[in-house]
Amino acid sequence: MNILVVGLGLIGGSLCKALKKYTYHTVYGSNRSPEVEEAAMRDIAIDYRFEGDFSDIDLVVISLYPEGTEKYFTENAPKMKKGTLVTDVCGIKGDFAARMRKIAEYNGLRYVGIHPMAGKEFGGYQNSTPDLFQRANFVVTAFENDREEDVRALESLSKEVGAGKVVITSPENHDKMIAYTSQLAHIVSSAYVKSPEIKLECGFSGGSFQDMTRVATMNEKMWTDLFLQNRDNLLFELDTLIQNLLEYRNALDSGSEKELLRLIADGRKMKEDNLRHRVGQPN
Amino acid sequence: MNILVVGLGLIGGSLCKALKKYTYHTVYGSNRSPEVEEAAMRDIAIDYRFEGDFSDIDLVVISLYPEGTEKYFTENAPKMKKGTLVTDVCGIKGDFAARMRKIAEYNGLRYVGIHPMAGKEFGGYQNSTPDLFQRANFVVTAFENDREEDVRALESLSKEVGAGKVVITSPENHDKMIAYTSQLAHIVSSAYVKSPEIKLECGFSGGSFQDMTRVATMNEKMWTDLFLQNRDNLLFELDTLIQNLLEYRNALDSGSEKELLRLIADGRKMKEDNLRHRVGQPN
Repeated sequence: MNILVVGLGLIGGSLCKALKKYTYHTVYGSNRSPEVEEAAMRDIAIDYRFEGDFSDIDLVVISLYPEGTEKYFTENAPKMKKGTLVTDVCGIKGDFAARMRKIAEYNGLRYVGIHPMAGKEFGGYQNSTPDLFQRANFVVTAFENDREEDVRALESLSKEVGAGKVVITSPENHDKMIAYTSQLAHIVSSAYVKSPEIKLECGFSGGSFQDMTRVATMNEKMWTDLFLQNRDNLLFELDTLIQNLLEYRNALDSGSEKELLRLIADGRKMKEDNLRHRVGQPN
Repeated sequence: MNILVVGLGLIGGSLCKALKKYTYHTVYGSNRSPEVEEAAMRDIAIDYRFEGDFSDIDLVVISLYPEGTEKYFTENAPKMKKGTLVTDVCGIKGDFAARMRKIAEYNGLRYVGIHPMAGKEFGGYQNSTPDLFQRANFVVTAFENDREEDVRALESLSKEVGAGKVVITSPENHDKMIAYTSQLAHIVSSAYVKSPEIKLECGFSGGSFQDMTRVATMNEKMWTDLFLQNRDNLLFELDTLIQNLLEYRNALDSGSEKELLRLIADGRKMKEDNLRHRVGQPN
């Protein structure tokens, strides 16, 4: 398959490298700044720099921020070969995916979204790696009347580049879940560093502090966009968390050993169930 | 040196194994249940089961929960050789360390506390490993008039078993810092799992969710004890975090892109400063 990856940042760059390392697909790369394309050619992360001819391209993977993704697709969809499968790797689907699908339909193309649940606390091509997706979860978002073969094609591609679990779900459910599993975690991390003690942390921390604050280095432009596009789901998760934190806070404030024991035991059991995967994959 | 480790759980067991793997000290082990002592003998995690004769012991490391540590020390201090150095590995110091020091003084012993900032989300001897302390931070808590050589002895021992940074500080400052770097992280983790979405998480999460919830499996008995003994410091940190989370929440609720950009950028810069270790080690 001839695959065009648009945007050679952390995700796009890693995807190219993974495709070259683990598959026989031919990879075309396109990036705003030519220096990155040159670096990708040197690293053999891509086979060709994309020169604008879509006629040989079977799959387009747009790896830009949501706004850029929509803009690129709107501008370039008319130039793509009819029937080309197009995907994106944005962390938001919902309304965004519905708009992407409309652009596809209007131009006689096919569209299915994917979201690799992988990343690093520092972005850019310079941090991309062929093994970023090893054992990472991938979410494939499909509308009800999407073609089964398109969904399966992206599922296969995810596995080829190293995916662990691949979940196929609706754009709406994706956004609901991601508010909890990813966006809330980023907000907590960002808020966690804002204690006066952070300035004296050096030498006093263990793994839990590092884990808690790792993603606080996130890019504010991308994440503000993602958060605002998923406002209701994220507000629900934030309110739930704050409410739960207040329970611990009040138990501690009143010195209630019994209540603290109960709260921590409840959390322990929920995490144990989570680790046991007691509940199957959702649809 | 002949070292007695009392309590062969995750920390005590790992300490024995690290002493055997990385040092030439002779290790005596003592544990409530004889099966664990037998396992430690089989694993050559200890040289001898401790039979109750303190006359050859140069250093006693009590690796029990805070309550058990104090109880053990009270009961056994009179049997120890005068001048023996005693330490503990509890996650709380403050008043606890002051009481430990009084017991030591009363019995002609020396006491300095240590807190290895290492652990795992599952405890017990069965999870102990000689490399638990590799590159882990160690906090040594000393009172103003403690003997320099005792503090240095524990600093050396920490490095021998693999410590990264070793910080020497007062018991009070230890508690203040640990409220932020460890206890708060455990509460957040425990609260984080309490969303209805946790039941459907499988397949939807990346590293940030795993990092955020890893320590939610903590033992409720030990942590309730630690939290209650550090109530004021922990309340301050919890309130600070909740206040900060509310800022993100309100910015999101009002759809303020500008405010979200600012909040996330502030967090990013604070974490970057933290990673740069711009501020030196505190005293």
